[in-house]
Amino acid sequence: MENISTSQIKIKRASSSQVIDGYDELVIEEPLEIQLGYTDENAHIQKTISITMRTPGNDEELGVGFLFTEGIIKNKNQVGHTYVSLAENKVLVILNENEKLNLQKTERNFYTTSSCGVCGKTSIDAIKTISAYNNITDKICLSANLFYQLESELRNQQAIFETTGGLHASALFSLEGKFIKLREDVGRHNALDKLIGAAFLNEELPLTNKILLLSGRASFELVQKATMAGIKIIAAVGAPSSLAVQLAEEAGITKSVMHFITQ
Amino acid sequence: MENISTSQIKIKRASSSQVIDGYDELVIEEPLEIQLGYTDENAHIQKTISITMRTPGNDEELGVGFLFTEGIIKNKNQVGHTYVSLAENKVLVILNENEKLNLQKTERNFYTTSSCGVCGKTSIDAIKTISAYNNITDKICLSANLFYQLESELRNQQAIFETTGGLHASALFSLEGKFIKLREDVGRHNALDKLIGAAFLNEELPLTNKILLLSGRASFELVQKATMAGIKIIAAVGAPSSLAVQLAEEAGITKSVMHFITQ
Repeated sequence: MENISTSQIKIKRASSSQVIDGYDELVIEEPLEIQLGYTDENAHIQKTISITMRTPGNDEELGVGFLFTEGIIKNKNQVGHTYVSLAENKVLVILNENEKLNLQKTERNFYTTSSCGVCGKTSIDAIKTISAYNNITDKICLSANLFYQLESELRNQQAIFETTGGLHASALFSLEGKFIKLREDVGRHNALDKLIGAAFLNEELPLTNKILLLSGRASFELVQKATMAGIKIIAAVGAPSSLAVQLAEEAGITKSVMHFITQ
Repeated sequence: MENISTSQIKIKRASSSQVIDGYDELVIEEPLEIQLGYTDENAHIQKTISITMRTPGNDEELGVGFLFTEGIIKNKNQVGHTYVSLAENKVLVILNENEKLNLQKTERNFYTTSSCGVCGKTSIDAIKTISAYNNITDKICLSANLFYQLESELRNQQAIFETTGGLHASALFSLEGKFIKLREDVGRHNALDKLIGAAFLNEELPLTNKILLLSGRASFELVQKATMAGIKIIAAVGAPSSLAVQLAEEAGITKSVMHFITQ
Protein backbone atom coordinates (compact mmCIF):
# COMPACT_ATOMS: atom_id res chain seq x y z
CA MET A 1 0.00 0.00 0.00
CA GLU A 2 1.20 3.45 -0.88
CA ASN A 3 2.02 5.56 2.14
CA ILE A 4 -0.16 8.64 1.90
CA SER A 5 0.89 10.08 5.26
CA THR A 6 4.59 10.76 4.79
CA SER A 7 6.91 11.95 2.06
CA GLN A 8 10.67 12.02 1.71
CA ILE A 9 12.76 15.12 1.00
CA LYS A 10 16.40 15.84 0.41
CA ILE A 11 18.00 17.77 3.25
CA LYS A 12 21.37 18.99 4.38
CA ARG A 13 22.33 17.95 7.90
CA ALA A 14 24.54 20.64 9.39
CA SER A 15 26.64 19.98 12.47
CA SER A 16 29.26 22.36 13.85
CA SER A 17 31.94 20.84 11.64
CA GLN A 18 30.25 19.68 8.44
CA VAL A 19 27.23 19.64 6.17
CA ILE A 20 26.04 16.28 4.88
CA ASP A 21 23.43 15.59 2.22
CA GLY A 22 20.69 13.30 3.38
CA TYR A 23 17.01 12.47 3.41
CA ASP A 24 14.26 13.10 5.92
CA GLU A 25 10.68 11.88 6.26
CA LEU A 26 8.03 14.56 6.50
CA VAL A 27 4.47 14.15 7.64
CA ILE A 28 2.12 15.20 4.87
CA GLU A 29 -0.13 18.18 5.56
CA GLU A 30 -2.87 19.05 3.07
CA PRO A 31 -6.21 20.86 3.38
CA LEU A 32 -9.38 18.80 3.60
CA GLU A 33 -12.73 20.32 2.70
CA ILE A 34 -15.52 18.80 4.79
CA GLN A 35 -18.85 19.09 2.98
CA LEU A 36 -22.34 18.19 4.10
CA GLY A 37 -25.02 17.13 1.62
CA TYR A 38 -28.67 17.42 2.67
CA THR A 39 -32.16 18.02 1.36
CA ASP A 40 -34.02 21.23 2.11
CA GLU A 41 -37.52 21.71 0.65
CA ASN A 42 -36.73 19.16 -2.06
CA ALA A 43 -33.51 20.94 -3.05
CA HIS A 44 -30.24 19.06 -2.76
CA ILE A 45 -27.75 21.24 -0.95
CA GLN A 46 -24.02 20.74 -0.67
CA LYS A 47 -22.42 23.00 1.91
CA THR A 48 -18.79 23.37 2.97
CA ILE A 49 -18.74 23.16 6.75
CA SER A 50 -15.01 23.41 7.36
CA ILE A 51 -11.58 23.30 5.81
CA THR A 52 -8.96 21.73 8.02
CA MET A 53 -5.24 21.15 7.50
CA ARG A 54 -4.84 17.41 7.94
CA THR A 55 -2.69 14.39 7.17
CA PRO A 56 -4.31 12.31 4.41
CA GLY A 57 -5.72 8.97 5.50
CA ASN A 58 -8.94 8.05 7.35
CA ASP A 59 -10.66 11.01 5.73
CA GLU A 60 -14.12 9.47 6.03
CA GLU A 61 -13.59 9.08 9.76
CA LEU A 62 -12.34 12.64 9.98
CA GLY A 63 -15.36 13.97 8.10
CA VAL A 64 -18.04 12.22 10.14
CA GLY A 65 -16.01 12.60 13.34
CA PHE A 66 -15.81 16.36 12.88
CA LEU A 67 -19.51 16.65 12.06
CA PHE A 68 -20.32 14.58 15.14
CA THR A 69 -18.06 16.39 17.62
CA GLU A 70 -19.41 19.72 16.35
CA GLY A 71 -22.94 18.54 17.11
CA ILE A 72 -24.08 18.60 13.47
CA ILE A 73 -24.84 14.88 13.18
CA LYS A 74 -25.88 12.55 16.01
CA ASN A 75 -25.67 8.99 14.76
CA LYS A 76 -24.86 6.78 11.80
CA ASN A 77 -28.51 6.30 10.81
CA GLN A 78 -28.59 9.90 9.65
CA VAL A 79 -25.81 9.33 7.14
CA GLY A 80 -26.70 7.98 3.71
CA HIS A 81 -23.39 8.00 1.88
CA THR A 82 -19.90 9.35 2.31
CA TYR A 83 -17.62 10.18 -0.60
CA VAL A 84 -13.89 10.78 -0.23
CA SER A 85 -11.75 12.31 -2.97
CA LEU A 86 -8.03 12.32 -2.17
CA ALA A 87 -7.34 14.07 -5.49
CA GLU A 88 -9.63 16.96 -4.55
CA ASN A 89 -8.91 16.79 -0.80
CA LYS A 90 -12.59 16.57 -0.11
CA VAL A 91 -14.99 14.49 1.96
CA LEU A 92 -18.72 14.75 1.31
CA VAL A 93 -21.11 13.37 3.93
CA ILE A 94 -24.64 13.03 2.55
CA LEU A 95 -27.52 12.79 4.99
CA ASN A 96 -30.60 10.66 4.41
CA GLU A 97 -33.47 12.52 2.73
CA ASN A 98 -35.69 12.68 5.79
CA GLU A 99 -32.99 14.18 8.00
CA LYS A 100 -33.80 17.66 9.21
CA LEU A 101 -30.89 19.88 10.03
CA ASN A 102 -30.53 23.08 11.95
CA LEU A 103 -27.29 24.41 10.56
CA GLN A 104 -27.73 27.81 12.14
CA LYS A 105 -27.36 26.15 15.50
CA THR A 106 -24.10 24.60 14.45
CA GLU A 107 -22.07 27.51 13.21
CA ARG A 108 -19.43 27.33 15.91
CA ASN A 109 -22.10 28.19 18.43
CA PHE A 110 -20.03 26.71 21.22
CA TYR A 111 -18.27 30.02 21.39
CA THR A 112 -20.95 32.45 20.31
CA THR A 113 -24.26 31.64 21.96
CA SER A 114 -23.43 34.03 24.71
CA SER A 115 -25.58 36.51 26.54
CA CYS A 116 -22.59 37.42 28.68
CA GLY A 117 -20.04 37.81 25.91
CA VAL A 118 -17.39 35.32 25.00
CA CYS A 119 -16.10 33.49 28.02
CA GLY A 120 -14.98 30.04 28.97
CA LYS A 121 -17.99 29.53 31.23
CA THR A 122 -20.37 30.17 28.34
CA SER A 123 -18.47 27.80 26.10
CA ILE A 124 -18.68 25.09 28.74
CA ASP A 125 -22.43 25.59 29.30
CA ALA A 126 -23.04 25.33 25.55
CA ILE A 127 -21.13 22.06 25.26
CA LYS A 128 -22.87 20.55 28.26
CA THR A 129 -26.19 21.32 26.59
CA ILE A 130 -25.19 19.91 23.22
CA SER A 131 -23.54 16.63 24.26
CA ALA A 132 -25.94 13.69 24.13
CA TYR A 133 -23.93 11.78 26.72
CA ASN A 134 -23.56 14.42 29.37
CA ASN A 135 -25.78 12.64 31.88
CA ILE A 136 -23.82 9.43 32.13
CA THR A 137 -22.50 9.26 35.67
CA ASP A 138 -21.08 5.74 35.93
CA LYS A 139 -18.52 5.39 38.65
CA ILE A 140 -15.21 4.13 37.28
CA CYS A 141 -12.31 3.10 39.50
CA LEU A 142 -8.85 2.61 38.06
CA SER A 143 -5.44 1.92 39.48
CA ALA A 144 -2.92 4.74 39.13
CA ASN A 145 -0.36 2.20 37.95
CA LEU A 146 -2.36 1.56 34.83
CA PHE A 147 -1.77 5.06 33.50
CA TYR A 148 1.99 4.70 33.60
CA GLN A 149 1.84 1.85 31.10
CA LEU A 150 -0.26 3.69 28.55
CA GLU A 151 2.40 6.03 27.22
CA SER A 152 4.90 3.35 26.24
CA GLU A 153 2.10 1.37 24.61
CA LEU A 154 1.19 4.52 22.65
CA ARG A 155 4.77 4.86 21.39
CA ASN A 156 4.76 1.22 20.30
CA GLN A 157 1.66 1.82 18.25
CA GLN A 158 2.63 5.18 16.84
CA ALA A 159 4.34 4.03 13.70
CA ILE A 160 4.48 7.30 11.81
CA PHE A 161 5.63 9.43 14.72
CA GLU A 162 8.86 7.50 14.85
CA THR A 163 9.90 8.52 11.36
CA THR A 164 8.65 12.09 11.15
CA GLY A 165 8.29 13.39 14.71
CA GLY A 166 5.49 15.48 13.30
CA LEU A 167 2.29 13.73 14.28
CA HIS A 168 -0.15 13.99 17.14
CA ALA A 169 -1.94 10.84 18.25
CA SER A 170 -5.20 10.01 19.99
CA ALA A 171 -5.64 6.48 21.27
CA LEU A 172 -8.34 4.44 22.97
CA PHE A 173 -7.61 1.89 25.68
CA SER A 174 -9.93 -0.39 27.62
CA LEU A 175 -10.38 0.19 31.35
CA GLU A 176 -7.91 -2.68 31.81
CA GLY A 177 -5.30 -0.73 29.81
CA LYS A 178 -5.61 -2.84 26.65
CA PHE A 179 -4.87 -0.94 23.45
CA ILE A 180 -7.90 -0.62 21.16
CA LYS A 181 -7.39 1.97 18.44
CA LEU A 182 -5.12 4.84 17.44
CA ARG A 183 -5.34 7.67 14.95
CA GLU A 184 -2.64 10.15 13.98
CA ASP A 185 -2.64 13.54 12.34
CA VAL A 186 -0.61 16.70 11.95
CA GLY A 187 -3.44 18.42 13.85
CA ARG A 188 -4.28 17.10 17.30
CA HIS A 189 -7.99 17.88 16.88
CA ASN A 190 -8.03 15.90 13.63
CA ALA A 191 -6.43 12.86 15.28
CA LEU A 192 -9.22 12.87 17.86
CA ASP A 193 -11.93 13.48 15.26
CA LYS A 194 -10.62 10.49 13.28
CA LEU A 195 -10.67 8.31 16.39
CA ILE A 196 -14.19 9.37 17.33
CA GLY A 197 -15.27 9.14 13.70
CA ALA A 198 -14.07 5.53 13.58
CA ALA A 199 -16.16 4.75 16.65
CA PHE A 200 -19.10 6.61 15.09
CA LEU A 201 -18.91 4.53 11.91
CA ASN A 202 -18.67 1.30 13.95
CA GLU A 203 -21.60 2.45 16.12
CA GLU A 204 -19.44 2.19 19.24
CA LEU A 205 -20.51 5.49 20.78
CA PRO A 206 -20.63 6.51 23.60
CA LEU A 207 -17.07 5.70 24.61
CA THR A 208 -17.92 5.81 28.31
CA ASN A 209 -15.97 2.73 29.29
CA LYS A 210 -12.77 3.63 27.49
CA ILE A 211 -9.63 5.60 28.31
CA LEU A 212 -8.60 8.32 25.89
CA LEU A 213 -4.86 8.96 25.69
CA LEU A 214 -3.57 12.12 24.00
CA SER A 215 0.05 12.28 22.79
CA GLY A 216 0.33 16.02 23.44
CA ARG A 217 -1.26 18.76 25.46
CA ALA A 218 -4.90 18.70 26.50
CA SER A 219 -6.68 21.83 25.27
CA PHE A 220 -10.29 22.88 25.72
CA GLU A 221 -11.10 21.80 22.16
CA LEU A 222 -9.91 18.24 22.76
CA VAL A 223 -11.85 17.86 26.00
CA GLN A 224 -14.88 19.31 24.19
CA LYS A 225 -14.65 16.62 21.52
CA ALA A 226 -14.15 13.91 24.15
CA THR A 227 -17.23 15.18 26.00
CA MET A 228 -19.31 14.91 22.83
CA ALA A 229 -18.27 11.25 22.53
CA GLY A 230 -19.14 10.44 26.15
CA ILE A 231 -15.52 9.83 27.12
CA LYS A 232 -15.05 9.93 30.89
CA ILE A 233 -11.33 9.32 31.31
CA ILE A 234 -8.67 11.37 29.55
CA ALA A 235 -4.95 11.02 30.06
CA ALA A 236 -2.48 13.26 28.25
CA VAL A 237 1.28 13.16 27.82
CA GLY A 238 1.38 16.98 27.84
CA ALA A 239 -0.09 19.52 30.21
CA PRO A 240 -3.75 20.53 30.26
CA SER A 241 -5.00 24.11 30.04
CA SER A 242 -7.15 25.81 32.67
CA LEU A 243 -10.29 25.64 30.55
CA ALA A 244 -9.66 22.00 29.65
CA VAL A 245 -9.58 21.12 33.36
CA GLN A 246 -12.66 23.23 34.09
CA LEU A 247 -14.68 21.57 31.33
CA ALA A 248 -13.45 18.12 32.38
CA GLU A 249 -14.60 18.76 35.95
CA GLU A 250 -18.00 20.06 34.91
CA ALA A 251 -18.54 17.22 32.44
CA GLY A 252 -17.60 14.62 35.05
CA ILE A 253 -14.43 13.54 33.25
CA THR A 254 -11.83 11.79 35.44
CA LYS A 255 -13.15 13.81 38.35
CA SER A 256 -11.12 12.33 41.12
CA VAL A 257 -8.53 10.59 38.98
CA MET A 258 -7.82 13.56 36.67
CA HIS A 259 -4.52 12.06 35.77
CA PHE A 260 -2.10 13.55 33.35
CA ILE A 261 1.18 11.86 32.62
CA THR A 262 3.61 14.75 32.66
CA GLN A 263 6.62 14.87 30.38
CA MET B 1 1.49 42.51 38.58
CA GLU B 2 -1.19 39.89 38.60
CA ASN B 3 -0.31 36.86 36.55
CA ILE B 4 -3.03 36.55 33.93
CA SER B 5 -1.42 33.63 32.11
CA THR B 6 -1.44 30.88 34.71
CA SER B 7 -3.66 29.64 37.51
CA GLN B 8 -3.13 27.19 40.33
CA ILE B 9 -5.29 24.14 41.03
CA LYS B 10 -5.41 21.44 43.66
CA ILE B 11 -4.38 18.05 42.32
CA LYS B 12 -3.67 14.57 43.52
CA ARG B 13 -0.31 13.16 42.47
CA ALA B 14 -0.59 9.42 42.09
CA SER B 15 2.48 7.22 42.00
CA SER B 16 2.43 3.43 42.06
CA SER B 17 2.49 3.38 45.86
CA GLN B 18 0.64 6.48 47.06
CA VAL B 19 -1.58 9.46 46.31
CA ILE B 20 -0.46 12.86 47.56
CA ASP B 21 -2.44 16.11 47.61
CA GLY B 22 -0.67 18.97 45.88
CA TYR B 23 -0.89 21.95 43.60
CA ASP B 24 -0.15 22.45 39.94
CA GLU B 25 0.15 25.48 37.69
CA LEU B 26 -2.07 25.52 34.63
CA VAL B 27 -1.76 27.75 31.62
CA ILE B 28 -4.93 29.79 31.21
CA GLU B 29 -6.96 29.21 28.05
CA GLU B 30 -9.90 31.50 27.28
CA PRO B 31 -11.63 32.52 24.05
CA LEU B 32 -10.75 35.86 22.47
CA GLU B 33 -13.12 37.55 20.07
CA ILE B 34 -11.22 39.58 17.46
CA GLN B 35 -13.41 42.36 16.09
CA LEU B 36 -12.76 44.86 13.33
CA GLY B 37 -14.35 48.31 13.36
CA TYR B 38 -14.60 50.20 10.05
CA THR B 39 -16.69 52.71 8.17
CA ASP B 40 -18.73 51.70 5.15
CA GLU B 41 -20.82 54.35 3.37
CA ASN B 42 -20.82 56.45 6.55
CA ALA B 43 -22.03 53.55 8.68
CA HIS B 44 -19.84 52.38 11.56
CA ILE B 45 -19.53 48.63 11.35
CA GLN B 46 -18.18 46.28 13.99
CA LYS B 47 -17.56 42.80 12.70
CA THR B 48 -16.31 39.67 14.46
CA ILE B 49 -13.49 38.29 12.34
CA SER B 50 -12.43 35.36 14.49
CA ILE B 51 -12.72 33.71 17.85
CA THR B 52 -9.53 32.01 18.99
CA MET B 53 -8.71 30.05 22.14
CA ARG B 54 -5.78 31.94 23.62
CA THR B 55 -3.81 32.64 26.77
CA PRO B 56 -4.67 36.13 28.09
CA GLY B 57 -1.94 38.74 27.77
CA ASN B 58 -0.72 40.76 24.77
CA ASP B 59 -4.23 40.72 23.36
CA GLU B 60 -3.73 43.92 21.38
CA GLU B 61 -0.72 42.33 19.67
CA LEU B 62 -2.72 39.20 19.02
CA GLY B 63 -5.59 41.16 17.50
CA VAL B 64 -3.55 43.26 15.10
CA GLY B 65 -1.12 40.39 14.47
CA PHE B 66 -3.95 38.09 13.41
CA LEU B 67 -5.53 40.77 11.18
CA PHE B 68 -2.13 41.39 9.60
CA THR B 69 -1.13 37.76 9.00
CA GLU B 70 -4.59 37.10 7.52
CA GLY B 71 -4.01 39.94 5.04
CA ILE B 72 -6.85 42.11 6.38
CA ILE B 73 -4.67 45.04 7.49
CA LYS B 74 -1.34 46.09 5.99
CA ASN B 75 0.26 48.64 8.30
CA LYS B 76 -0.13 50.63 11.48
CA ASN B 77 -1.28 53.80 9.70
CA GLN B 78 -4.57 52.09 8.91
CA VAL B 79 -5.35 51.52 12.58
CA GLY B 80 -7.04 54.32 14.54
CA HIS B 81 -7.62 52.76 17.93
CA THR B 82 -7.50 49.38 19.58
CA TYR B 83 -9.60 48.45 22.60
CA VAL B 84 -8.96 45.41 24.74
CA SER B 85 -11.45 44.08 27.29
CA LEU B 86 -10.11 41.23 29.41
CA ALA B 87 -13.47 40.97 31.18
CA GLU B 88 -15.27 40.37 27.90
CA ASN B 89 -12.37 38.51 26.23
CA LYS B 90 -12.53 40.88 23.32
CA VAL B 91 -10.17 42.99 21.21
CA LEU B 92 -11.60 45.62 18.88
CA VAL B 93 -9.33 47.07 16.18
CA ILE B 94 -10.83 50.22 14.69
CA LEU B 95 -9.59 51.37 11.30
CA ASN B 96 -9.22 55.02 10.34
CA GLU B 97 -12.26 56.47 8.58
CA ASN B 98 -10.70 56.69 5.15
CA GLU B 99 -9.59 53.05 5.14
CA LYS B 100 -11.25 50.95 2.48
CA LEU B 101 -11.56 47.29 3.15
CA ASN B 102 -12.32 44.30 1.01
CA LEU B 103 -13.49 41.80 3.58
CA GLN B 104 -14.78 39.39 0.98
CA LYS B 105 -11.23 38.81 -0.10
CA THR B 106 -10.21 37.95 3.40
CA GLU B 107 -12.63 35.25 4.41
CA ARG B 108 -10.06 32.51 4.73
CA ASN B 109 -9.46 32.84 1.03
CA PHE B 110 -6.06 31.21 1.35
CA TYR B 111 -7.85 27.91 1.20
CA THR B 112 -10.80 28.67 -1.00
CA THR B 113 -9.79 30.79 -3.98
CA SER B 114 -9.26 27.68 -5.98
CA SER B 115 -10.14 26.90 -9.52
CA CYS B 116 -8.63 23.44 -9.04
CA GLY B 117 -10.30 22.58 -5.76
CA VAL B 118 -8.69 22.66 -2.37
CA CYS B 119 -5.06 21.75 -2.50
CA GLY B 120 -1.82 22.74 -0.94
CA LYS B 121 -0.53 24.21 -4.17
CA THR B 122 -3.50 26.58 -4.39
CA SER B 123 -3.03 27.64 -0.80
CA ILE B 124 0.61 28.42 -1.46
CA ASP B 125 -0.16 30.43 -4.60
CA ALA B 126 -2.73 32.49 -2.70
CA ILE B 127 -0.31 33.33 0.08
CA LYS B 128 2.43 34.26 -2.36
CA THR B 129 0.02 36.71 -3.97
CA ILE B 130 -1.15 38.24 -0.71
CA SER B 131 2.16 38.73 1.10
CA ALA B 132 3.55 42.23 0.66
CA TYR B 133 7.10 41.03 1.27
CA ASN B 134 7.24 38.10 -1.07
CA ASN B 135 9.71 39.73 -3.43
CA ILE B 136 12.49 40.28 -0.96
CA THR B 137 15.39 38.12 -2.08
CA ASP B 138 18.27 39.24 0.13
CA LYS B 139 20.97 36.65 0.46
CA ILE B 140 21.58 35.72 4.08
CA CYS B 141 24.48 33.53 5.21
CA LEU B 142 24.54 32.04 8.66
CA SER B 143 26.77 29.60 10.48
CA ALA B 144 25.16 26.26 11.35
CA ASN B 145 26.61 26.58 14.85
CA LEU B 146 24.42 29.55 15.57
CA PHE B 147 21.22 27.49 15.41
CA TYR B 148 22.36 25.11 18.12
CA GLN B 149 22.51 27.97 20.62
CA LEU B 150 19.02 29.24 19.95
CA GLU B 151 17.06 26.51 21.68
CA SER B 152 18.74 26.85 25.08
CA GLU B 153 18.34 30.61 24.85
CA LEU B 154 14.63 30.05 24.16
CA ARG B 155 14.28 27.90 27.28
CA ASN B 156 15.99 30.60 29.35
CA GLN B 157 13.50 33.14 28.16
CA GLN B 158 10.43 30.97 28.38
CA ALA B 159 9.38 31.77 31.91
CA ILE B 160 5.85 30.38 31.86
CA PHE B 161 6.69 27.15 30.10
CA GLU B 162 8.79 26.06 33.03
CA THR B 163 5.86 26.09 35.44
CA THR B 164 3.01 24.82 33.28
CA GLY B 165 4.53 22.86 30.41
CA GLY B 166 1.53 24.04 28.45
CA LEU B 167 2.72 26.91 26.31
CA HIS B 168 4.03 27.29 22.81
CA ALA B 169 6.56 30.01 22.11
CA SER B 170 7.64 32.05 19.11
CA ALA B 171 10.85 34.04 19.43
CA LEU B 172 12.84 36.45 17.31
CA PHE B 173 16.62 36.47 17.19
CA SER B 174 19.04 38.71 15.32
CA LEU B 175 21.16 37.20 12.55
CA GLU B 176 23.96 37.11 15.13
CA GLY B 177 21.82 34.90 17.39
CA LYS B 178 20.98 37.64 19.90
CA PHE B 179 17.59 37.23 21.57
CA ILE B 180 15.11 40.00 20.69
CA LYS B 181 11.56 39.11 21.66
CA LEU B 182 9.39 36.19 22.71
CA ARG B 183 5.67 35.56 22.93
CA GLU B 184 3.89 32.57 24.44
CA ASP B 185 0.42 31.13 24.08
CA VAL B 186 -1.55 27.94 24.50
CA GLY B 187 -2.02 28.06 20.71
CA ARG B 188 1.12 28.09 18.58
CA HIS B 189 -0.50 30.30 15.91
CA ASN B 190 -1.44 32.82 18.61
CA ALA B 191 2.12 32.96 19.94
CA LEU B 192 3.33 33.85 16.45
CA ASP B 193 0.51 36.34 15.84
CA LYS B 194 1.43 38.08 19.11
CA LEU B 195 5.08 38.23 18.08
CA ILE B 196 4.27 39.60 14.63
CA GLY B 197 1.64 41.91 16.15
CA ALA B 198 4.27 43.38 18.46
CA ALA B 199 6.52 44.06 15.47
CA PHE B 200 3.53 45.54 13.61
CA LEU B 201 2.75 47.96 16.45
CA ASN B 202 6.43 48.99 16.66
CA GLU B 203 6.54 49.41 12.88
CA GLU B 204 9.36 46.89 12.64
CA LEU B 205 7.98 44.98 9.66
CA PRO B 206 9.21 43.30 7.49
CA LEU B 207 11.25 40.98 9.71
CA THR B 208 13.57 40.03 6.88
CA ASN B 209 16.77 40.23 8.86
CA LYS B 210 15.60 38.20 11.83
CA ILE B 211 15.52 34.53 12.77
CA LEU B 212 12.19 33.09 13.87
CA LEU B 213 12.42 30.22 16.36
CA LEU B 214 9.36 28.07 17.05
CA SER B 215 9.18 25.98 20.23
CA GLY B 216 7.14 23.22 18.57
CA ARG B 217 6.36 21.80 15.18
CA ALA B 218 6.33 23.90 12.04
CA SER B 219 2.98 23.66 10.31
CA PHE B 220 1.80 25.28 7.11
CA GLU B 221 -0.14 27.91 9.07
CA LEU B 222 2.96 29.08 10.94
CA VAL B 223 5.07 29.35 7.79
CA GLN B 224 2.17 31.22 6.18
CA LYS B 225 2.17 33.79 8.98
CA ALA B 226 5.96 34.10 8.83
CA THR B 227 5.74 34.67 5.07
CA MET B 228 3.26 37.49 5.60
CA ALA B 229 5.76 39.17 7.95
CA GLY B 230 8.66 38.84 5.49
CA ILE B 231 10.53 36.38 7.69
CA LYS B 232 13.20 34.51 5.72
CA ILE B 233 14.71 32.19 8.33
CA ILE B 234 12.66 29.80 10.44
CA ALA B 235 14.06 27.29 12.89
CA ALA B 236 11.80 24.97 14.84
CA VAL B 237 12.37 22.62 17.75
CA GLY B 238 9.80 20.19 16.31
CA ALA B 239 9.45 18.67 12.88
CA PRO B 240 7.99 20.52 9.89
CA SER B 241 5.13 19.23 7.75
CA SER B 242 5.37 18.60 4.01
CA LEU B 243 3.31 21.67 3.13
CA ALA B 244 5.30 23.86 5.53
CA VAL B 245 8.51 22.89 3.72
CA GLN B 246 6.91 23.39 0.31
CA LEU B 247 5.68 26.87 1.19
CA ALA B 248 9.02 27.75 2.77
CA GLU B 249 10.82 26.74 -0.40
CA GLU B 250 8.48 28.67 -2.69
CA ALA B 251 8.58 31.76 -0.48
CA GLY B 252 12.38 31.69 -0.37
CA ILE B 253 12.52 30.92 3.34
CA THR B 254 15.81 29.40 4.55
CA LYS B 255 16.24 27.97 1.10
CA SER B 256 19.63 26.43 1.43
CA VAL B 257 19.88 26.61 5.20
CA MET B 258 16.44 25.14 5.90
CA HIS B 259 17.50 24.19 9.34
CA PHE B 260 15.29 22.54 11.88
CA ILE B 261 16.63 21.60 15.26
CA THR B 262 15.21 18.12 15.72
CA GLN B 263 14.17 16.75 19.06
